Amino acid sequence: MKISNIPYRTIWPHPADGRTVQIIDQRHLPHRFVVADLKTLEDFEVAIRDMLVRGAPLIGSAAAYGMYVASLQFSASQNFDEKMREAAARLKATRPTAVNLAYAVDRVLDVVGSLTVGSWQSRTGGHNISEQIAKIRQVAHDITEESVAHCRSIGEHGLKLIEAIHGRKQKQALTSTVVHPPLAVNILTHCNAGWLACIDHGTATAPIYAAHDRGIPVHVWVDETRPRNQGASLTAFELKEHGVPHTVIADNTGGHLMQHGLVDMVIVGTDRTTRTGDVANKIGTYLKALAAADNGVPFYVAVPSSSIDWSLRNGLTDIPIEQRDATEVHYISGFDEKMGEVREVRLTPQGSPAANYAFDVTPARLVTGLITERGVCNASEEGLLGLFAERKER
Amino acid sequence: MKISNIPYRTIWPHPADGRTVQIIDQRHLPHRFVVADLKTLEDFEVAIRDMLVRGAPLIGSAAAYGMYVASLQFSASQNFDEKMREAAARLKATRPTAVNLAYAVDRVLDVVGSLTVGSWQSRTGGHNISEQIAKIRQVAHDITEESVAHCRSIGEHGLKLIEAIHGRKQKQALTSTVVHPPLAVNILTHCNAGWLACIDHGTATAPIYAAHDRGIPVHVWVDETRPRNQGASLTAFELKEHGVPHTVIADNTGGHLMQHGLVDMVIVGTDRTTRTGDVANKIGTYLKALAAADNGVPFYVAVPSSSIDWSLRNGLTDIPIEQRDATEVHYISGFDEKMGEVREVRLTPQGSPAANYAFDVTPARLVTGLITERGVCNASEEGLLGLFAERKER
Repeated sequence: MKISNIPYRTIWPHPADGRTVQIIDQRHLPHRFVVADLKTLEDFEVAIRDMLVRGAPLIGSAAAYGMYVASLQFSASQNFDEKMREAAARLKATRPTAVNLAYAVDRVLDVVGSLTVGSWQSRTGGHNISEQIAKIRQVAHDITEESVAHCRSIGEHGLKLIEAIHGRKQKQALTSTVVHPPLAVNILTHCNAGWLACIDHGTATAPIYAAHDRGIPVHVWVDETRPRNQGASLTAFELKEHGVPHTVIADNTGGHLMQHGLVDMVIVGTDRTTRTGDVANKIGTYLKALAAADNGVPFYVAVPSSSIDWSLRNGLTDIPIEQRDATEVHYISGFDEKMGEVREVRLTPQGSPAANYAFDVTPARLVTGLITERGVCNASEEGLLGLFAERKER
Repeated sequence: MKISNIPYRTIWPHPADGRTVQIIDQRHLPHRFVVADLKTLEDFEVAIRDMLVRGAPLIGSAAAYGMYVASLQFSASQNFDEKMREAAARLKATRPTAVNLAYAVDRVLDVVGSLTVGSWQSRTGGHNISEQIAKIRQVAHDITEESVAHCRSIGEHGLKLIEAIHGRKQKQALTSTVVHPPLAVNILTHCNAGWLACIDHGTATAPIYAAHDRGIPVHVWVDETRPRNQGASLTAFELKEHGVPHTVIADNTGGHLMQHGLVDMVIVGTDRTTRTGDVANKIGTYLKALAAADNGVPFYVAVPSSSIDWSLRNGLTDIPIEQRDATEVHYISGFDEKMGEVREVRLTPQGSPAANYAFDVTPARLVTGLITERGVCNASEEGLLGLFAERKER
């Protein structure tokens, strides 16, 4: 997607230097746009741990590229395989609960294993090492491109939903005798399930970008998403840079907008989806789903299949909800315009406790549909198995 | 209620000086506790306009005391009545939409009128002026005490609801064989309908203080209440100072807590209530009401009868919703601990628009009951008229 009219991804190999990987350092958004060079395994550990990169798909891709850079670093080592296993463990330890991270690292490790089992060259650092490095680079590339392809597909499937709403609004306007509101499709989203959390397109934002790029007028209500404000800082930034009309609102606002016909659909992302269609997403998603149901507003979830936990049936009882540090509620960061820098300020009285639940679960009954890379389905086991038949239990 | 263990109100005549009124300057809360002296009409204009005092009942009381101070100021004036009418107009202009303000000012003006019509002394500044000043002071005192009495009554009626829940929890604990959660009654509230918005007790907080002061264990979930953060800055402060256990949460959190049985009841305030029981309150109240209904959590609204607009029947269509300046969404104020002062920081990207709806309407169907100064009733015309029979239409 575009920043200052230039197409970007969140991570890419340096175009001129085969040994460096570049990322957008997201810690500075939305106030500064910074590109960082990652040249060593240590650089990748810091980038993932300190959240220069964040979002499940992006973390996976970064971890894979981290393994690639490690393979260059250790190419002359006597015990390449062992060093790579160490690198894998170090990368996995940076964000221990991120499923995509472990998956990506293991997929790279499979390459290391497959070429070295019973191969004497690997122990002497011979020709086989450069072959492995090339394969590792290919795996990192593949993981990244698969992720982009899934987001693109979610965009195409979701686009049809937006087109349908736009068509209906156009028809209503033609037959209506009253002055009608602008024909843009008003979409509410929560948190950042945007391209900054992925490599490109995003998940919840993919249908929005697809519609905007085809000339369908869209307008996005961006929940600021306390306590970490990923909506106000990241979603607003990426929509603005790509030129998509949008308005930032406090998280309290969506219900009122829906009561007054100002939201045509909701699209959110998901951190974990059960096989029955329950959705764990950023705290507050459930409240928006309730308001959507109360006002007849369609509520969609963009679900890359990597986020589906096929072992779970009941989101409310089976998905553990992370409690993060209370400091994220007590303090907030923003740009102090008088000082010209980002500062942190305290919002609560000294001595008042705070709690910080990171996610909530939206039951499938409140979800109109799931937008996956294979198509849109009902939020139910039957719906999901219609698209992912290989997951049927025998 | 108490601050640092000393009982306070939000406004009071200076104990030693009959010409000065003191207030808590609420602009500095929760980071600094500042008492301000108001000695002139101008002081009161600034205090109301710049929100040193806020909250409908407190504004009403402040305006009445402003008239009292003005009467002292103009006591030697040749045209006392005219000066007082000017003072009334100036006070009314400070917050033009505040109903309580106009009501209080007019009630004081009635005194000025009643004693001077046909009275030659008033024109010459004779004995009659000091009589009027005494009466004006009495009216200001009466308005204040009535407001306190209404809050105290709401507290007593709401206390019974909390007692009932506490009794039920105790009984469940006795008969339960599993380890039971702490027996405190968990109450969620939104925004600040606390004593800082009133003179004492508050509206939504009155039952909470009443229960706490009688030794019933309560714990309050305090919505931070973006964009102006009255929950995090004012409700948390007053609960902490009075010693009531509480936890500040992001506005997104209440639904998750209710799904997991962590909320026993919701009590919120109201800015305007229809005769049919629809409630306009701080934006986001509706979302909590939806979550309460979805999880079988009782949802109560503390309604001083002064907030009931008997002329309205449909809250959603009839109550205009104020849109405030978008800067309240773009920026936030907090205490910069490194600098030792309150600073404002920007949260959104330059160039991203924001919208700031101040209130939403919770339909009566989602409200379990209204806690008025005359008792608790259903959120319906029938319920309200059962307590306020004088409002029946003939």
